[in-house]
Amino acid sequence: MIGSRIQVVVVLFDNVTQLDFTGPAQVFARLPDTDLTYAAPTLDPVSTDSGFSVVPTATLAAAPQADVLFVPGGQGAMESMANPAILDFVRRQAQQATFVTSVCTGSFVLAAAGLLAGRRATSHWASLDMLTEFGATPVSQRVVTDGNIITGAGVSSGIDFALVLAERLRGREVAERIQLQIEYDPQPPFDAGSAMSAPREWVDAGRATARDARLPAVREAVARLAASSR
Amino acid sequence: MIGSRIQVVVVLFDNVTQLDFTGPAQVFARLPDTDLTYAAPTLDPVSTDSGFSVVPTATLAAAPQADVLFVPGGQGAMESMANPAILDFVRRQAQQATFVTSVCTGSFVLAAAGLLAGRRATSHWASLDMLTEFGATPVSQRVVTDGNIITGAGVSSGIDFALVLAERLRGREVAERIQLQIEYDPQPPFDAGSAMSAPREWVDAGRATARDARLPAVREAVARLAASSR
Repeated sequence: MIGSRIQVVVVLFDNVTQLDFTGPAQVFARLPDTDLTYAAPTLDPVSTDSGFSVVPTATLAAAPQADVLFVPGGQGAMESMANPAILDFVRRQAQQATFVTSVCTGSFVLAAAGLLAGRRATSHWASLDMLTEFGATPVSQRVVTDGNIITGAGVSSGIDFALVLAERLRGREVAERIQLQIEYDPQPPFDAGSAMSAPREWVDAGRATARDARLPAVREAVARLAASSR
Repeated sequence: MIGSRIQVVVVLFDNVTQLDFTGPAQVFARLPDTDLTYAAPTLDPVSTDSGFSVVPTATLAAAPQADVLFVPGGQGAMESMANPAILDFVRRQAQQATFVTSVCTGSFVLAAAGLLAGRRATSHWASLDMLTEFGATPVSQRVVTDGNIITGAGVSSGIDFALVLAERLRGREVAERIQLQIEYDPQPPFDAGSAMSAPREWVDAGRATARDARLPAVREAVARLAASSR
């Protein structure tokens, strides 16, 4: 169970899609009585997809046990499916964590650690279907809760995900106050933000590109997982 | 005018509210033929309000001339109103920039640099009214355009701001494709994200707190600006 203080551990790696974790971090940082740890394989700055680097606050080895384990996505998440240090960390932390969570393709790291077999989960729309390779049930929804596993869809959905989680952790009033503090009253200037609303050919092309780029790494991760559990 | 490549310069400082710039950065990073510079007084990592630090990519002295000058907010923006190096940089860059922009209380840095007198602009809802001290006209709107000055409201509004700017820079299709890539189809779980929708007492308390904490620094900045232009 969650104690009086909440330990949130964000897993960082090179080539992370930064809004996947910076959106949730803006919410987590305003939760009362909550400690945030940004854990990476080393303390070297971690590269993001947006041209800046982020300094981790702990190595994986030194990170505290998480109440909330959180994994963002991006090209680095795909690479992390082949990184035993990250997979072992996620698997070990998940055993004691109250919530095991991800945004975007961070769900593929959870899957590669063996945590999503038979579970409902979401991911970025372009990669979502590939979760089936791990025996997970992909759900095309912005935030998906299955037991103690909470996953968010692509990139910007991390803000919605984090507010849902904030309510679970500290109650609705705290979550609503944070929503006001970050002025989260979104007004997208266009209506192209989901696979349902964008032009069909953009969506088809995005899925084809993701499949070509990522399916080999996904299948290797599935094979390694099967071998390790034999 | 904007050349074939766009130079976006993000001004960083300690105690920045990180989503103010990480939201826009996620959009800017996907603009074609665009270079992003994260400029700070030194190359030391810059602290954020969310427990992690960000590594700048250039000093203020080494930053290129911006086509888009962008200033985020936070406690550090208030502190920057008393930092001549940052104000001089903003003032000098603004002379040649095609767009001069901010999110959240970043507009107070623009104001302290003398750029908002007689202009319409927005800011975080709790601090917005104090823009009048600089002779600006506060507008309670998520994104406000006045000539070449584009300002966004609090924190999460940076994503809406950046998509509006992306359309101005590269056209609507590019902006919509980015919206799809970052799956920006927001679904806030609550309706407390604006000063209009949140409980009145939270809003009043937030404004009173901001005024108590920030009005002295605002008035000092106004006085310095008046003295410098004499």
